[in-house]
Amino acid sequence: MRKVIVQKFGGTSVADTEKIKNVARTVIKEKENGNDVVVVVSAMGHTTDYLVKMAKDLSPVPSGREMDMLLSTGEGVSIALLAMAIQAQGYDAVSFNAMQVGIITENVHSKARIIDIKTDKLRKNLQEGKIIVVAGFQGVTEDGEITTLGRGGSDTSAVALAAALNAERCDIYTDVEGVYTTDPRIVPNASRLDEISYEEMLELAHAGANVLHPRSVETAKQFNVPLRVRSSFKLDNMGTLILGVDNMEIYKPVAGVAADLSQARIVVCDVPDKPGVAAKLFGSMAKEHISVDMIIQSYARKVSNTNDIAFTVDANDLDKTVAVLKKLREDIGASGEIQVDSNIAKVSIVGAGMIDRPGIASTMFETLAELGINIRMISTSEIKISCLVDKDQAYKAVEALHKVFELESDEIAEVKGDLPNV
Amino acid sequence: MRKVIVQKFGGTSVADTEKIKNVARTVIKEKENGNDVVVVVSAMGHTTDYLVKMAKDLSPVPSGREMDMLLSTGEGVSIALLAMAIQAQGYDAVSFNAMQVGIITENVHSKARIIDIKTDKLRKNLQEGKIIVVAGFQGVTEDGEITTLGRGGSDTSAVALAAALNAERCDIYTDVEGVYTTDPRIVPNASRLDEISYEEMLELAHAGANVLHPRSVETAKQFNVPLRVRSSFKLDNMGTLILGVDNMEIYKPVAGVAADLSQARIVVCDVPDKPGVAAKLFGSMAKEHISVDMIIQSYARKVSNTNDIAFTVDANDLDKTVAVLKKLREDIGASGEIQVDSNIAKVSIVGAGMIDRPGIASTMFETLAELGINIRMISTSEIKISCLVDKDQAYKAVEALHKVFELESDEIAEVKGDLPNV
Repeated sequence: MRKVIVQKFGGTSVADTEKIKNVARTVIKEKENGNDVVVVVSAMGHTTDYLVKMAKDLSPVPSGREMDMLLSTGEGVSIALLAMAIQAQGYDAVSFNAMQVGIITENVHSKARIIDIKTDKLRKNLQEGKIIVVAGFQGVTEDGEITTLGRGGSDTSAVALAAALNAERCDIYTDVEGVYTTDPRIVPNASRLDEISYEEMLELAHAGANVLHPRSVETAKQFNVPLRVRSSFKLDNMGTLILGVDNMEIYKPVAGVAADLSQARIVVCDVPDKPGVAAKLFGSMAKEHISVDMIIQSYARKVSNTNDIAFTVDANDLDKTVAVLKKLREDIGASGEIQVDSNIAKVSIVGAGMIDRPGIASTMFETLAELGINIRMISTSEIKISCLVDKDQAYKAVEALHKVFELESDEIAEVKGDLPNV
Repeated sequence: MRKVIVQKFGGTSVADTEKIKNVARTVIKEKENGNDVVVVVSAMGHTTDYLVKMAKDLSPVPSGREMDMLLSTGEGVSIALLAMAIQAQGYDAVSFNAMQVGIITENVHSKARIIDIKTDKLRKNLQEGKIIVVAGFQGVTEDGEITTLGRGGSDTSAVALAAALNAERCDIYTDVEGVYTTDPRIVPNASRLDEISYEEMLELAHAGANVLHPRSVETAKQFNVPLRVRSSFKLDNMGTLILGVDNMEIYKPVAGVAADLSQARIVVCDVPDKPGVAAKLFGSMAKEHISVDMIIQSYARKVSNTNDIAFTVDANDLDKTVAVLKKLREDIGASGEIQVDSNIAKVSIVGAGMIDRPGIASTMFETLAELGINIRMISTSEIKISCLVDKDQAYKAVEALHKVFELESDEIAEVKGDLPNV
């Protein structure tokens, strides 16, 4: 039986007709390798921005249902154009939107989760030798309502299709050359990783390495779909393969270093030390869809029988968080102030190999100490150690950690865009 | 039971967000009249041209299936935006594409015919008090393939929806104020008709009055759906109501005069006068999808036992027609030349009342004769008389006929665009 390869191309890769021709050539090359090919594409370049702008002209808060209807047209354009471009080069191709395939999602707008993918139409068309072009980012409910999958949606579509078709691999073509040991804008000689485990990739993604949306990595992990991140424009570079840790050839104790500058720290002072308080506090956050990252609860003070609860949220959620806390303070009996600090960054080291090497954490803390960097909070998982530091020290911390864990390459990586200001 | 009104707005009426807001107001006004409202919209302004241009960049002959996939996104945008605009004014609205409604067509691309419309979802949403916005121009096959309806497609969608929902009326909002007794660019004081029969409208449409595509009028006639053509921008003007001749209050012998400058005349000389020749000739035209309009066969010449067959086709089909004839000439034994003349125009008078007034035809011929206009061909139907004249005399003929049949108004009509050069 022929192997199925799922390829995904983002909006930048299909931004104009010349680029679409380029994508068609890449797709055909994979077909010529003797594989069945399913291609997932996003909307062209700035289409989504343009559509959102028109919607905002008409309504300050457009309905989620109509917004999904509107945005889903973007991929309708790119799939048809890519199918035409493939056909123009003499290959049989057919495009399907999510409704035609049957990419079934829950009935939620703008961030629906895929619950099922029908494969009959896809298998039939693959058997007929066709290259299939599928609209990413979109889905349909059992009732025929159009939904979208939210951020990283097209990656998730591709991975879910690969899982449903039991694909050999899912290749995510993008404008970076793979997953690096850290952001090459911070450390120019960062190394491209040939392999990384799902778990490490997830931690790196959560830690701010914006190569893949965590959701797509989670889906790949769940269904054990090997995922390759590679450049649309440099096809001789094989990028980075993301796979199960059991399948990895070798791994270093630390695979990468990441900085996340988009967080804010909140401290709720003098919270009564009694059961249920934390549950109430973070339950209220969850109800408002505020994702909380690091959480630290201090030891209770003997005299007042209170403690302080510190946590971090996305800086965009800061105002909403403070509003929730102000309402909640009386309810949970917190007598102290609410401290807010946006001038922070989370620096993390990630590695599946650190689990049985106790020296890693202390090496990290010592490295930061030597630079005079004060650690404001620490949190750890089995494969990650994160330290909260002052924002203006974040890049210095990343550079030093990248060096101390010997992650440098001999080459200078190509970089895109500017670093966030600190 | 509440009455259903179907409204249709073309691409010009939804060309930008300001115009979409305007359409929303018109829709809401009809809803406020106590009716259930279903709105059909085309793609915004120049969307289709833009999409076609990209397709041509990718392929000289894009596949019909992918072209339909591509073009159908245009209405996806406009329906979502219009639904948002209606919602923003405080009314409940929902948009559906053809696949969601179930506008079932035959499995033909770029000019599919509607074969069925599912009404369950529409009726359910109307019962819930919602204004429904439906994508025009597009359909779906029983197998879930996206199709488009070709020229005049959105008008046809609207009329077919009105028929399926047993609507009170179908209002076609456009950039003209109604159906005129002739093209106001030729005769500035042409009168707007308050009423016209389907049959007259069909003849006028075929005769070159580009207000409505004949297909939508045919569908309206078939299902007896009253059709109103009116301006999107001048809502106090009720436009023209097109309805069955039995329901008309009063009609003049001649309702309108039209000129069609897009035809070419072909004469096949010395065709053997024997059975089957005309069938073979026009059968070959039909096979090549060439529409033939007027046909004249001369009396057979006694000596040679041959005759001449003259007919008119759309000037765009002229080269194709000549190619077919050249191949065919030997087969049918036509020994003479093939004469071609693009320098002609068809001038027609149309009126359901002419059927029992024998003087009408002679008045037409006399009027042209007085102006020294030579009539090259004549064809008649029960409600139409068409004369082929030299192109540069067409407008003069229209003016004179409009006057002699007393069709003038006291007002000067507003005009859009330029007349074709003669």
